[in-house]
Amino acid sequence: MTSVRLFDLAGEDPQRRFSPACWKTRLALAHKAVPVETTAWRFTEKEAIAKSGRGTVPVIVNRDRWISDSWSIAEYLEDTFPDAPSLFGGEVGQALARFLNHWADMVLVPSIFGLIAMDIHDHLAPQDLTYFRSSREQRIGMTLEALVASRDDRVAAIRASMQPLRQTLKSQQFLGGDSPRYADYAVFGPFQWARCVSPFQILERDDPVFAWRNRILDLFGGLARNVPSYD
Amino acid sequence: MTSVRLFDLAGEDPQRRFSPACWKTRLALAHKAVPVETTAWRFTEKEAIAKSGRGTVPVIVNRDRWISDSWSIAEYLEDTFPDAPSLFGGEVGQALARFLNHWADMVLVPSIFGLIAMDIHDHLAPQDLTYFRSSREQRIGMTLEALVASRDDRVAAIRASMQPLRQTLKSQQFLGGDSPRYADYAVFGPFQWARCVSPFQILERDDPVFAWRNRILDLFGGLARNVPSYD
Repeated sequence: MTSVRLFDLAGEDPQRRFSPACWKTRLALAHKAVPVETTAWRFTEKEAIAKSGRGTVPVIVNRDRWISDSWSIAEYLEDTFPDAPSLFGGEVGQALARFLNHWADMVLVPSIFGLIAMDIHDHLAPQDLTYFRSSREQRIGMTLEALVASRDDRVAAIRASMQPLRQTLKSQQFLGGDSPRYADYAVFGPFQWARCVSPFQILERDDPVFAWRNRILDLFGGLARNVPSYD
Repeated sequence: MTSVRLFDLAGEDPQRRFSPACWKTRLALAHKAVPVETTAWRFTEKEAIAKSGRGTVPVIVNRDRWISDSWSIAEYLEDTFPDAPSLFGGEVGQALARFLNHWADMVLVPSIFGLIAMDIHDHLAPQDLTYFRSSREQRIGMTLEALVASRDDRVAAIRASMQPLRQTLKSQQFLGGDSPRYADYAVFGPFQWARCVSPFQILERDDPVFAWRNRILDLFGGLARNVPSYD
């Protein structure tokens, strides 16, 4: 099998791969046992991925086909490698995974961003600093410093917002059931994002979500664990 | 097939069946095409369901077997009627439905309760009024009147909290995909709860969630639509 190429967001350290969406794709590729060659990519390198039609990663290239957007990539991988373990576990599993993917992006990502925004900034390559700060500050309507200044006051409410996840993981090892599926990778992405750039403790150590996160870190020979990160 | 008996929460009007959890079960039974006889039940009739081991509905009785808790009932129906259409669509679908069920109970139910608490109260049978008020006011730490007084200020944030649901329903007709599954019924339950007791407009008319709610109301010959309710 020829390798798939993955454009993977990196910090100043080219080995620090911190994008939550790229981690979804990285784990989906591992689930499908697809060999991958990653290319470190920075926010401002729009030209390098222009063929994808988008300005953000993940982007994969399989033979001459360029695919962007982590959800579209997951669907592409499921269709293209049908004999490898299923990412979705059937049509209903795929439909419900879409909800969990949106929940991760709309609940976890913004709340975790509010905890780690300065930590992301402090790990960026120099050429990305201005782009990151100006685009994010425009979106949130305040400085990154002002956003994270109140993070200690907000973390309890953020942990509470994870209650549906926590309650589910009291009954089963993975969101997908006995074994991990794409929904697990989609929800894990934002936690790995934090872990890759920030020492801030988002999860308490006795949280079932923390134990689940550790199970994902153990998958595929420690693929997500053994990277530049904090723990 | 012998009928299953469902103890179904009712208001002063015995035909006003407003429990979100009972609606999950009612639709699950219809999905499985299981004939059902419902028994109007009030909050304070704990004796009538004592054999279930719990003090809350839904409770079903199939032959001599008593089963309580809407999720346990759904799993029981899936196992007991394997030849009828699947509620979960496989093991992964079942595992992911558990998350959506918790999301409905932990995100939708408390927030919608804050909008309709007095409307529930005002539809109760006289013998339930004191029980309902005292148990709920103890839980929320204020009077029902104080809770709902600010509902106009809160409804926008509640609509925003439904964003993962809304975004999912922009891509597919049902949470389960092309056709409804238990996850749809689990998430629909809280909306039907509101519809059965309150004229308060939770969903805007151009919301994809509103259109999806209407699709659920159309199922099974209008089973959920053609009941005492507001619209």
